[in-house]
Amino acid sequence: MVDQLKDEDLVFSRAKPDVFGDAHPKALLKTIQEDGDALVKLANQHIISCDQFDRQTILQLFRLASKYESNPKRFNTPLKGKILISAFYEPSTRTRLSFESAWHRLGGDIMSITDRSTTGIAKGESLADIGEMFNNYGDCVVLRESNEDSVKEMTSTLRIPIINAGNGTDEHPTQAMADLYTIFKWRPELLKDNPQKIRVGIVGLPNYMRTVRSLLKIFSLFPEIFEEVVIIHDKTDDDIFTEGQREQLEEAGLNLRLTNRLNKELPELDVVYINAIAWVGDDFESHGDKFVLNAQSPLKEDGIILHPLARGDELSTDLDETPHNWYFSQARGAVFLRMALLTCMVERTEMVMDVI
Amino acid sequence: MVDQLKDEDLVFSRAKPDVFGDAHPKALLKTIQEDGDALVKLANQHIISCDQFDRQTILQLFRLASKYESNPKRFNTPLKGKILISAFYEPSTRTRLSFESAWHRLGGDIMSITDRSTTGIAKGESLADIGEMFNNYGDCVVLRESNEDSVKEMTSTLRIPIINAGNGTDEHPTQAMADLYTIFKWRPELLKDNPQKIRVGIVGLPNYMRTVRSLLKIFSLFPEIFEEVVIIHDKTDDDIFTEGQREQLEEAGLNLRLTNRLNKELPELDVVYINAIAWVGDDFESHGDKFVLNAQSPLKEDGIILHPLARGDELSTDLDETPHNWYFSQARGAVFLRMALLTCMVERTEMVMDVI
Amino acid sequence: MVDQLKDEDLVFSRAKPDVFGDAHPKALLKTIQEDGDALVKLANQHIISCDQFDRQTILQLFRLASKYESNPKRFNTPLKGKILISAFYEPSTRTRLSFESAWHRLGGDIMSITDRSTTGIAKGESLADIGEMFNNYGDCVVLRESNEDSVKEMTSTLRIPIINAGNGTDEHPTQAMADLYTIFKWRPELLKDNPQKIRVGIVGLPNYMRTVRSLLKIFSLFPEIFEEVVIIHDKTDDDIFTEGQREQLEEAGLNLRLTNRLNKELPELDVVYINAIAWVGDDFESHGDKFVLNAQSPLKEDGIILHPLARGDELSTDLDETPHNWYFSQARGAVFLRMALLTCMVERTEMVMDVI
Repeated sequence: MVDQLKDEDLVFSRAKPDVFGDAHPKALLKTIQEDGDALVKLANQHIISCDQFDRQTILQLFRLASKYESNPKRFNTPLKGKILISAFYEPSTRTRLSFESAWHRLGGDIMSITDRSTTGIAKGESLADIGEMFNNYGDCVVLRESNEDSVKEMTSTLRIPIINAGNGTDEHPTQAMADLYTIFKWRPELLKDNPQKIRVGIVGLPNYMRTVRSLLKIFSLFPEIFEEVVIIHDKTDDDIFTEGQREQLEEAGLNLRLTNRLNKELPELDVVYINAIAWVGDDFESHGDKFVLNAQSPLKEDGIILHPLARGDELSTDLDETPHNWYFSQARGAVFLRMALLTCMVERTEMVMDVI
Repeated sequence: MVDQLKDEDLVFSRAKPDVFGDAHPKALLKTIQEDGDALVKLANQHIISCDQFDRQTILQLFRLASKYESNPKRFNTPLKGKILISAFYEPSTRTRLSFESAWHRLGGDIMSITDRSTTGIAKGESLADIGEMFNNYGDCVVLRESNEDSVKEMTSTLRIPIINAGNGTDEHPTQAMADLYTIFKWRPELLKDNPQKIRVGIVGLPNYMRTVRSLLKIFSLFPEIFEEVVIIHDKTDDDIFTEGQREQLEEAGLNLRLTNRLNKELPELDVVYINAIAWVGDDFESHGDKFVLNAQSPLKEDGIILHPLARGDELSTDLDETPHNWYFSQARGAVFLRMALLTCMVERTEMVMDVI
Repeated sequence: MVDQLKDEDLVFSRAKPDVFGDAHPKALLKTIQEDGDALVKLANQHIISCDQFDRQTILQLFRLASKYESNPKRFNTPLKGKILISAFYEPSTRTRLSFESAWHRLGGDIMSITDRSTTGIAKGESLADIGEMFNNYGDCVVLRESNEDSVKEMTSTLRIPIINAGNGTDEHPTQAMADLYTIFKWRPELLKDNPQKIRVGIVGLPNYMRTVRSLLKIFSLFPEIFEEVVIIHDKTDDDIFTEGQREQLEEAGLNLRLTNRLNKELPELDVVYINAIAWVGDDFESHGDKFVLNAQSPLKEDGIILHPLARGDELSTDLDETPHNWYFSQARGAVFLRMALLTCMVERTEMVMDVI
């Protein structure tokens, strides 16, 4: 009977592919000099939008994330006694578990809400009132809600910090932070003087996909590292930005270019970011179905691929075993990035700084 | 871009309004003399109904709750190693999170059931059998179920304690305890000799709303503090009590009066308790829609408002910033009240007593 | 008012019936000599099927389970800092809570998925991709899924261990382990030389019920203890095994016999195992409704009853207070069995061995 079950089905290896190793985060850690003050001030802030960050805060969060990722077992109690309210009123595995894992790895406890229908919202309670209640129950809130105004409704009453983990078509700032963290982890030398600029392609809709909107905002804090940011889409050029969105990004120094042709761009792209899902109302829509990356795609030899969400047909699994695959590293790094952010938000920064 | 996001959206203050401060719970704590024996005996009891309590047990629980609330960070490990089974077969945010927060604050672990459809009940398992299983899985059960008999079905097999967190239209004893705790926290002098009696108005249906039923029962243990309890309702007077309910309350010494007119009573009410939701079967019903409290209501100058559940239109948010608002303190205090009760039920009372 | 509520409703006893006592697990513990190497190797294995075990591994797991059950409070930190991903895409109370309780009792933290509709599967994410994510989030996965191939899909990417907690109609190995553990706990002398063989009756379908399939596989590792294994079913004899299933069991040394008559067999059965539920697709089916055990059933005087799942009409509650009831002990023991398995899988075996 044992014959039917192959050994390879049973035995697994805990070893990690190279991009998951600690060389990259260690290199990034060395590249950024510690500045604890930038993090300490996060103790009094909600995290709502990528608009709210400056370069130094982002870099210090990346430094702390890379410190966690370089040595995952070193810190496991900074959040001891702290309670996270993990409120996901929209379906999610990845983001919810990424946050919850981050919290647990730091020693905290969690209360989860995973379904609107099981909660008081079913009785018509407002998010402002729920926020008032949350003050009594926990030390931090992570909220995902299909309504754009949800986070601001809740912050109107909160006296504990909240993280926007996706509010409709608006923003998903921690995902964008995790995305940029991956790019710096991949190539820490981008943070040195006169870096060799990179060309990034984004397959997606800046006006419709919260991950893309947030990503462009965080890119605009570091315009000097981008030769060009190419938006690859299947709409008309007039239909992919909300009012003023493009202008703001360009004023901040980003070189934007739009195109409908993915494969023509691929040979010149150092980073290809692909996303095919937009959350609209209570459901999701697929966009850009015609854009597909696979092992036959004319990728630049040392180009990497990022993908922020659950993968669909747009990203073939035959790329998983290639060096282009940094989307796994991206998902892994998101946990450490969130660990860094959460630590600061609940006033435990000083427990993990090198110099106090 | 930062302009779009206002600082006031991002920055929050951890400071609490006055009613949330520690002056009130500290005053209540001083008013009640410790009697640990009253609490120790709770280690062998289920919490099913307000009928089961005597004055001394209630007061000692309030004492412990006020001790917790006076110094929220002092005790954080009494429930270490203990497992709560949080079984909510009816939708809830407030009550579930209030219990779970209480348990986590004391250092315990939790397993949650948040939806009937995800459980063995879907396969037809009886509550008695589920209770038998729970004996093996945890140290305490909190149950919310739409069926009145649910708690007793489960106690038929339980060898660990259970708390009734709402069983259909029957009772919700810990909510009533939290309500009365708020009143004593607001005015600890009610516990001294010859207190100045208060007049309380209850907007709700004693025969139909479990919170009102439980509240009147716990009021009846302290008849000497109530000048009068006015039931404000929109039915006929014959239709708001179950058989014998009114007689029992009056025998216990409560002065009850019924009326259909809220605003006429308000100027004389020290406490107004308002609730518009009744759970019937698997859904809720609204009652008393015509009764509304807002900043224009003719409230007594130093009168306070209590509200046990998710707020609907019956309680205007323009009262939130007024001194009448003790409903936020009520929700906050419920966590500490539940901490007190849970500590006693799992045999950890001696870890938090002043004198051992 | 207190009169309405009887004392017997309120007061409970923490004392346990005899089969729940520690005499049986202690006796089993003494019967098996420790061999830590057999457990240490589990640190590199997924748990998919009963096919994968040998006698020594099973016995050592039973030894560790009986050590836990003999002294439930002795070990409470071996999994400190470890995170379980409890992924139940099919409804379950028992199995989920049994695993989660096991994990919590050993000091670990948990993230739960309790409903397919709340997860990324709703967006079409593959189990292989979910497995890749899980690598980043936790230290161990417990998976229940209605699809047979689900576990293997996930192991294709996992670098942390997974336990199959029921995959469609295929297997449920930890349940079978808990079942056999109960039999050895009931009669440890079965493990001595020349044991008095037992006759076991299984009411159920080996080709359709995952619990029965797994049970027969694990029985086949210990053929010397079974006089006979009688399959009691309401189909035709040709319709209860999948291809090759019967032959494999008989080659391993099991004496199998089939019948449609339960009561005729009962007087000779030392162990009756009854199960009426099969999971098929996204729902369950009932089988063998005509087979019922109750206090009038002609059970052998010292015969015992086992039941692996939520009880339906097939097992009358009037047997609960009889010595035939070992199904409660079976459910209780499953927690300790899972504690043993989980300890080994996350490389903490050495923390609980007698000799290191």
